[in-house]
Amino acid sequence: MKIGILGTGSVGQALAGRLAGLGHEVVIGTRDVAASLARTEPDGRGNPAIGGWIKNNPAVRLVTFAEAAAFSDGIIIHAMNGYAAIDSLKMAGEANLNGKILLDITNPLDFSKGFPPSLFVSNTDSLGEQIQAAFPALKVVKSLNTMSNPVMINPKAIAGDHSVFMSGNDADAKAAVAGLLKSFGWDDRNIIDLGDISTARGTEQILPIWVRLYGKLQTPMFNFNVNVAG
Amino acid sequence: MKIGILGTGSVGQALAGRLAGLGHEVVIGTRDVAASLARTEPDGRGNPAIGGWIKNNPAVRLVTFAEAAAFSDGIIIHAMNGYAAIDSLKMAGEANLNGKILLDITNPLDFSKGFPPSLFVSNTDSLGEQIQAAFPALKVVKSLNTMSNPVMINPKAIAGDHSVFMSGNDADAKAAVAGLLKSFGWDDRNIIDLGDISTARGTEQILPIWVRLYGKLQTPMFNFNVNVAG
Repeated sequence: MKIGILGTGSVGQALAGRLAGLGHEVVIGTRDVAASLARTEPDGRGNPAIGGWIKNNPAVRLVTFAEAAAFSDGIIIHAMNGYAAIDSLKMAGEANLNGKILLDITNPLDFSKGFPPSLFVSNTDSLGEQIQAAFPALKVVKSLNTMSNPVMINPKAIAGDHSVFMSGNDADAKAAVAGLLKSFGWDDRNIIDLGDISTARGTEQILPIWVRLYGKLQTPMFNFNVNVAG
Repeated sequence: MKIGILGTGSVGQALAGRLAGLGHEVVIGTRDVAASLARTEPDGRGNPAIGGWIKNNPAVRLVTFAEAAAFSDGIIIHAMNGYAAIDSLKMAGEANLNGKILLDITNPLDFSKGFPPSLFVSNTDSLGEQIQAAFPALKVVKSLNTMSNPVMINPKAIAGDHSVFMSGNDADAKAAVAGLLKSFGWDDRNIIDLGDISTARGTEQILPIWVRLYGKLQTPMFNFNVNVAG
């Protein structure tokens, strides 16, 4: 597949590397290509800068948001910071988005008051719903947002069953995302389709306990499993 | 132990029955004892009415909130509807609460707009914190609020590991609650102390995905497991 990823952070990098390794053609979209390529210092959280990452991963090209969305032949991956989620899609342009699937991994994390973050939208709304409402012709599937990026792309790194959730209004779009998840190593039985995009409220509101568990466990290598009585 | 339970619904009944079976002396507190005893019709969600339940469980007495709190020699269990959580404690009376442990199972579920419920407090606050702030001399431990009552009292009903969380400011109070959980069958490794009472924001915000999973799975016999890479 031709896959455009929006977002140059650790999530975008991890997915780009994994997808390129699986043989897909991958581009990463950013606001300002020249500025991103010039960035070589790790960010405040120790994530590698995109400029250095691209140098080490020459199969992946860095392009604008609009070019990344246009490049995609089916699935666009949304790996932006939550605050920039809607703006980056506006910059990508409706014409480049419409009719395509958006695998939305964004979370509405608000770090303005430090750690732990709160959510800038929650409870009676979600970022997934806001994106779907802003771009009605885009097929938004919220998924992978409840775990760290090493787990997203390599679920077998954690032994035993653990769950990945999907929320979205379009059944075919969810099937396509499930196919991508399976190519990462997710077992069918652990992919849980929660229902329409409003169920993204549920997965986005997992983040508050996720960040506390991260603080306690001192590792991002964990995930939730929904354990059902047999 | 002498244990007072606040709340006559299915959670209070399940805990009262289990604790009496374990040999504890148990009372259930209610707003109006005579009115509760007269209630024999199941409620709208099919839960047995407390009047009938008490008749079938003569070891458990129905008393006022104040009598239930006063009866407790260490742990009071809070199994009220979220909206009545603070008021019922006011009726119990500070003198009967102070210095004791409150195992708080309440959730701030708002069903005023039907299903799925939203939360009437969330994100930057929690019901657990509101209770602790209203009763500073009570040792609030939020726990068991992320699962259905049959799972609370009999975790072995679900095979394999699954998690129960604790949030609270007092380490001894959490140790006492952990002891009670272990007597229900919870394994030590599955009891996760998240930290202070503000971590109740995390567990209360699990409810939105819990109710969606309940709708999808069509059974309340499931629970979350935190699966950590070995």
